[in-house]
Amino acid sequence: MENDLIKNAVLFLSKLPGVGKKSAERYILHTLKHRETLLTGLINALSEMQNNIIKCANCGNMDTKSPCTICQDEKRDKKTICIVEDLAAMYVIENSGFYKGQYHVLWGLLSAFENIGPDALELPKLIEKFKKQEIEEVIIALSSNIEGQTTLHYIYDLLKEKDVKVTTLAQGVPVGGEIEYLDAGTLNTAFISRKTLEAN
Amino acid sequence: MENDLIKNAVLFLSKLPGVGKKSAERYILHTLKHRETLLTGLINALSEMQNNIIKCANCGNMDTKSPCTICQDEKRDKKTICIVEDLAAMYVIENSGFYKGQYHVLWGLLSAFENIGPDALELPKLIEKFKKQEIEEVIIALSSNIEGQTTLHYIYDLLKEKDVKVTTLAQGVPVGGEIEYLDAGTLNTAFISRKTLEAN
Repeated sequence: MENDLIKNAVLFLSKLPGVGKKSAERYILHTLKHRETLLTGLINALSEMQNNIIKCANCGNMDTKSPCTICQDEKRDKKTICIVEDLAAMYVIENSGFYKGQYHVLWGLLSAFENIGPDALELPKLIEKFKKQEIEEVIIALSSNIEGQTTLHYIYDLLKEKDVKVTTLAQGVPVGGEIEYLDAGTLNTAFISRKTLEAN
Repeated sequence: MENDLIKNAVLFLSKLPGVGKKSAERYILHTLKHRETLLTGLINALSEMQNNIIKCANCGNMDTKSPCTICQDEKRDKKTICIVEDLAAMYVIENSGFYKGQYHVLWGLLSAFENIGPDALELPKLIEKFKKQEIEEVIIALSSNIEGQTTLHYIYDLLKEKDVKVTTLAQGVPVGGEIEYLDAGTLNTAFISRKTLEAN
């Protein structure tokens, strides 16, 4: 005998990745228990975001302005572009604080399984950048799974004829990673890419 | 370099029970990836709920009308009231389909730890019901933890002088429960409340 409006809110919340119907119901009932502080605040926060956040026409970041804060920042290196899958990847890199170049958000990865082809990604915009600005290096920072690696090679082919250094992230043992818990693929890559220690 | 509006939406979502900052960020970025289908729908669903759902003045259920659908249902037993902590508990009982009486939602449990006293619960409304209608049985269906049992005894004391049968849920081995995985408390209760098998 749940009310339809409550059911509907539960339904939408359960569309979030990893949120089941039971969790969604728990969340919604919690908001109903704290209507003034939580539910109103949540609705306002989501609405403000929906009404004011736009996609940066230059890099694909989400901000209240386009070009976004990062693209407008004069202190950042304009000649280096880091290609990322989505905002989550961009935020991780940005929050770690060591990278001071530009970004290019693809908003997806090539996937035969999910039927995502090159047209669905922001690739024409990437090519256009080479006409408009001087680019020295493109760092392809995509996930190390099938989709990520397929996309990496596709982008590499696209950029081959351009006069630009194309790099990707190093693969190997994660910092702090214990050998006994590594998967065979990572271990194999780390062996193949092993480095000579130099006496100094 | 996350936008403040996005940060704010993440902050509100991370106030949901069991949702950490990382999950909240993942949810929000997912809504931004599916703005038209998901974000708009979620905002509308939450707003409709916020604007139209009211608390039933009679039982504390949430519905678009007061008295709520359950209280207005002429087919339900008016003389039995089931006391529950919140809507989640009520939904579980309601969805299992065997109970056809009335409800009384406390919207909380007595808790010294969280400083929730009797005044914070919907207890005066419960007492009032005895003046307005004939009640034969009150089933106290609260969780089997300290707060639930404290509240149970408090309500039992409140209702002692009323001419009403007060019951609570049986405790013991859950249906399908395996003895080897039961905790000592449940096992002890099940031993104390053991039943004589009758030949038939």
